[in-house]
Amino acid sequence: MGEAGFLGATITGYGCAGISDVAMGLITREVEKVDSGYRSALSVQSSLSMGAIHDFGTDELKGQFLPEMAKGNVIGCFGLTEPNHGSDPGSMETTARVDPNREGVYLLSGSKTWITNSPIADVLIVWAKLDGKIRGFLVDRARCPPGTLETPAIKNKTGLRASITGMIHMDNCPVPKEYIFPDVEGLRGPFACLNNARYGIAWGTMGALEDCIERAREYALSRKQFKGNPLAKYQLIQKKLADAVTDATFGLLACVQVGRLKKQGLLVPEMISMIKRQNCDRSLVHARSLQEIFGGNAVADEYHIGRHVANLFVAQTYEGQSDIHSLILGRAITGVQAFC
Amino acid sequence: MGEAGFLGATITGYGCAGISDVAMGLITREVEKVDSGYRSALSVQSSLSMGAIHDFGTDELKGQFLPEMAKGNVIGCFGLTEPNHGSDPGSMETTARVDPNREGVYLLSGSKTWITNSPIADVLIVWAKLDGKIRGFLVDRARCPPGTLETPAIKNKTGLRASITGMIHMDNCPVPKEYIFPDVEGLRGPFACLNNARYGIAWGTMGALEDCIERAREYALSRKQFKGNPLAKYQLIQKKLADAVTDATFGLLACVQVGRLKKQGLLVPEMISMIKRQNCDRSLVHARSLQEIFGGNAVADEYHIGRHVANLFVAQTYEGQSDIHSLILGRAITGVQAFC
Amino acid sequence: MGEAGFLGATITGYGCAGISDVAMGLITREVEKVDSGYRSALSVQSSLSMGAIHDFGTDELKGQFLPEMAKGNVIGCFGLTEPNHGSDPGSMETTARVDPNREGVYLLSGSKTWITNSPIADVLIVWAKLDGKIRGFLVDRARCPPGTLETPAIKNKTGLRASITGMIHMDNCPVPKEYIFPDVEGLRGPFACLNNARYGIAWGTMGALEDCIERAREYALSRKQFKGNPLAKYQLIQKKLADAVTDATFGLLACVQVGRLKKQGLLVPEMISMIKRQNCDRSLVHARSLQEIFGGNAVADEYHIGRHVANLFVAQTYEGQSDIHSLILGRAITGVQAFC
Amino acid sequence: MGEAGFLGATITGYGCAGISDVAMGLITREVEKVDSGYRSALSVQSSLSMGAIHDFGTDELKGQFLPEMAKGNVIGCFGLTEPNHGSDPGSMETTARVDPNREGVYLLSGSKTWITNSPIADVLIVWAKLDGKIRGFLVDRARCPPGTLETPAIKNKTGLRASITGMIHMDNCPVPKEYIFPDVEGLRGPFACLNNARYGIAWGTMGALEDCIERAREYALSRKQFKGNPLAKYQLIQKKLADAVTDATFGLLACVQVGRLKKQGLLVPEMISMIKRQNCDRSLVHARSLQEIFGGNAVADEYHIGRHVANLFVAQTYEGQSDIHSLILGRAITGVQAFC
Repeated sequence: MGEAGFLGATITGYGCAGISDVAMGLITREVEKVDSGYRSALSVQSSLSMGAIHDFGTDELKGQFLPEMAKGNVIGCFGLTEPNHGSDPGSMETTARVDPNREGVYLLSGSKTWITNSPIADVLIVWAKLDGKIRGFLVDRARCPPGTLETPAIKNKTGLRASITGMIHMDNCPVPKEYIFPDVEGLRGPFACLNNARYGIAWGTMGALEDCIERAREYALSRKQFKGNPLAKYQLIQKKLADAVTDATFGLLACVQVGRLKKQGLLVPEMISMIKRQNCDRSLVHARSLQEIFGGNAVADEYHIGRHVANLFVAQTYEGQSDIHSLILGRAITGVQAFC
Repeated sequence: MGEAGFLGATITGYGCAGISDVAMGLITREVEKVDSGYRSALSVQSSLSMGAIHDFGTDELKGQFLPEMAKGNVIGCFGLTEPNHGSDPGSMETTARVDPNREGVYLLSGSKTWITNSPIADVLIVWAKLDGKIRGFLVDRARCPPGTLETPAIKNKTGLRASITGMIHMDNCPVPKEYIFPDVEGLRGPFACLNNARYGIAWGTMGALEDCIERAREYALSRKQFKGNPLAKYQLIQKKLADAVTDATFGLLACVQVGRLKKQGLLVPEMISMIKRQNCDRSLVHARSLQEIFGGNAVADEYHIGRHVANLFVAQTYEGQSDIHSLILGRAITGVQAFC
Repeated sequence: MGEAGFLGATITGYGCAGISDVAMGLITREVEKVDSGYRSALSVQSSLSMGAIHDFGTDELKGQFLPEMAKGNVIGCFGLTEPNHGSDPGSMETTARVDPNREGVYLLSGSKTWITNSPIADVLIVWAKLDGKIRGFLVDRARCPPGTLETPAIKNKTGLRASITGMIHMDNCPVPKEYIFPDVEGLRGPFACLNNARYGIAWGTMGALEDCIERAREYALSRKQFKGNPLAKYQLIQKKLADAVTDATFGLLACVQVGRLKKQGLLVPEMISMIKRQNCDRSLVHARSLQEIFGGNAVADEYHIGRHVANLFVAQTYEGQSDIHSLILGRAITGVQAFC
Repeated sequence: MGEAGFLGATITGYGCAGISDVAMGLITREVEKVDSGYRSALSVQSSLSMGAIHDFGTDELKGQFLPEMAKGNVIGCFGLTEPNHGSDPGSMETTARVDPNREGVYLLSGSKTWITNSPIADVLIVWAKLDGKIRGFLVDRARCPPGTLETPAIKNKTGLRASITGMIHMDNCPVPKEYIFPDVEGLRGPFACLNNARYGIAWGTMGALEDCIERAREYALSRKQFKGNPLAKYQLIQKKLADAVTDATFGLLACVQVGRLKKQGLLVPEMISMIKRQNCDRSLVHARSLQEIFGGNAVADEYHIGRHVANLFVAQTYEGQSDIHSLILGRAITGVQAFC
């Protein structure tokens, strides 16, 4: 992906491609046609890791890390979610404190989980509370003394198996003060990064759905049942395809429009909630429905559709589970919050 | 509507406004925010009646009828559907034959039903088989001898009560040969008109849904239950609103895109099937879901939402019931027809 | 219904039939096959009015009112819901106070709404707060001085048009102390009556659904489209019928089981919530789906299915809207309440 | 399972337990609470293999095989489905012919696929065409010369991973004529066995769903988000639980009723289609919905719900995919077949 110029492609400078948000969306969609795991890795590197450094890092950090990350030589990850705090990151327990022994050094302690790429990451963007306020830290694995940073992989995942996911355990992990994002505080920082990533998920899931449609269409045309008719001739099969194609089309148009507004600076975060939720939900519903066309064969991994279904379930749950985005939208519509 | 310039507004000349397809869609949406019945009347006058004359009529017919129809002084209707042939108009039984006694006159016999505006129409576009081929006839009510044309209203409709709907009974109803559309044969003619009308339905239903959302939102904010909380504070209510707003937004974007492609001549009919079906289906689903917010009060006509629900059910069934459009899409996707 | 022995049929004595709860359910189902409005009238007379008197009234009240109510000579109604308190009756505003001028008389003031039969009721069971506690009062219309009791009908209902619904306005309406239910206090009383009525709704909606199925089946067999095939031959039509028949069957079995447990004294109220909610929801969903089979004809009242759809929407909203029953079930499952 | 008396438990004699169909259903449900794979193995041994021998085999075959199969010492499988014929077994290509060289021996050739237990089966019930008619053959693996019978396992299944599934390849595989079921011809034989197995699936899926409910309930009570509230307190969570519990309850009641009718000889096959389809569909829908409660954690196999979801998808597709059962029901309702 680095060679192809996909990484951090919307960033201008630092060896990045500087393309539009819609163009980035189109890349994302193509990558997820292959597998959501690859798109996840792309998202994490581009939107979450490079995006955080670009938007909140100092010029020194940008110059130091972005060019190598754009090439794919340095891998990043993004640590926000904690074992006890998924939908509610504001309650995070990871803390930073001043190192009592060394000036200009902070010590991070706590755990993050469900972190795409963490086991292989060179650079870890970690959000932690410093004096009760959420701040962003760039952890450079090469500088961490043994025992201060562990990033074990989560095994036996049933979805997104093409990407690696892990935890981040920090025990007084040192970060020099130059590696703190200077001007961002609270959830504004991580949420800005997540918004970019969610924008990519909305695009990507459409790609996965399109691949499911194409595979189901081919299977329905080639598989004959009852007097030699292809499955494609049956009304119940055609309806599944028509439903899926419709939502794939509508979902794509919505992504294009949000991408254009994003470029123009007219984006509001609820637009992202809307397309992330809807496209994840609809792609999952349709992938499952199309999976039925394969009958018993769907369970064999050679038909791929089961893999997309498993992936899309994860897409629906991460970076804002659908119910959470429902409530974000509900709050925007009514002016009343219903989270608790 | 004539005074406002809404009638046949996409036509250039003949006193019509000559606006774009997207602009016409926006008008249609606003009209259906009030009531689908008004939009139906607008659609029939503009897309089906004026559209048919404009696209298929001779210059004489255009000059004679379009200006008065644009003002709303002359009302049109469109007779395709028959009592025994709804989704399958190609099997129509209405016929035209040469008048054995008068040269240059044709005689129409047969019945049409579910014809919006037929009881009040001055001009009736009627599709009938002449020598086994479907042709379009303009019936001028003023010229029909007594007993050759009857247009009784259908009473006790449970939806679209703001528009008038009727039958057309023709018994050797005479039409001069100058009132036949000269160059169109088969279902191509009526389907072209219907496509324009369906385009308008896709826009209009979004308007009706938006009105439902606005009414439900207001009710949810003002109605208090359980310790003084407004209904709007409850998660189950917010989800209904979020779901509805999402589909209203996605549906509108799809209409805009199809409108732009229509103007550019890039339209294919399946695009219309897609937006007509989806927007009718989703607006109906959400109107019904939002209706639940009103509880028992929904049954009182003063809250209006029940009226929209009843209207939207009709929108779903006419000009191509949703299942039929599913099969049109299915055929386009698979290359195989599954109608029978 | 009085002549047929339907009214208060589960009561033993007082001229009532003394049949089992399952037998009563079967009657209810047959009545709602005709129209939900008739079943509503039956429910209100039997479960809510006669049931309240039987379960909570004194022997004198039972002897005085039940025999005439069983014959249908005296009509009852049940006043719990108020304009501002639907799902939350515990917040009711109607009050009773001691008449300062007459010993042994109480004065009722307040309004009730959505009261089936109130405009024609001779006997009104009214729940009101006396010294802050909810108590049950039997209001005998014949004894109310002019101006103390008004029961205007609610006009232009879009559903349950075969039954009459109204309000109850009381302005110092006098009730002798002998007409107060002596031993019941709080929501326990009205909820017990409502549980019986809801049990009947669960049965009744299955009858309405069965009538929809039978009508849709007949229409699908007689209506020909595309090369002379009946609609019944199309897969999309068969699926709608199969889905409806399945839920009608499952719903009926659940009613039978709850009826048997009720007779054995093993009923818990959540069972009623479960069958009331599910059968209302599923009958409404399927009635709407079957309505699509009729295409445009569904909007003509002669096909009856639109009438059932409109009725079933009301059944879903009254005596516990579905969302409320969801939360009752949710509380039973989790032990945590989520109403507010 | 053999030690516990589960295998072939409804058979009387031959060392089998001789319990009722409802009792067998209850066992099936408990087994599938653990895993659908175990229930599949139980079904295949009991309903399909022992059931076929018991219902169609000679006394010699019953005496020879049933006692050891009841103990679990001899494993059976059931070969009907072929690679090109899933929903349409009547088109099977596997054939039997008289051995030209040996009297009283038949030779089987052809392939079966998606055969639970085939790789480990000692006894294979194979359905093949003899002189164009479908007949049942008992293949004793011990008697098959090398190269005449291969039963490779299907690897990398995404569901039912706790049971083993394979193919059956037969190349002139010899079967003595005493191992042919004497009095059954056509699809009646395998369909009778499948009906018994489907009856078990309807019960079993309710067990899997109940396990999902219990796990989701516990997770929702223990997982805290937003100010320390358990997830169980949120309306959107409670609704998922209420919906699931309702269908689990209704589905169980339907199984009990069908089991009672089965015992009384009042069963018609459409009853099985109804409960197999509905319980598979609803358990899958709810398992997926409950899976959302776990958020990202659902993807970790330690929470088990993903395993149930993957299993239930297979249950929905095998022994009659849901759409096929829809059309079986549709045919029963309308008298018209819509398979092709």
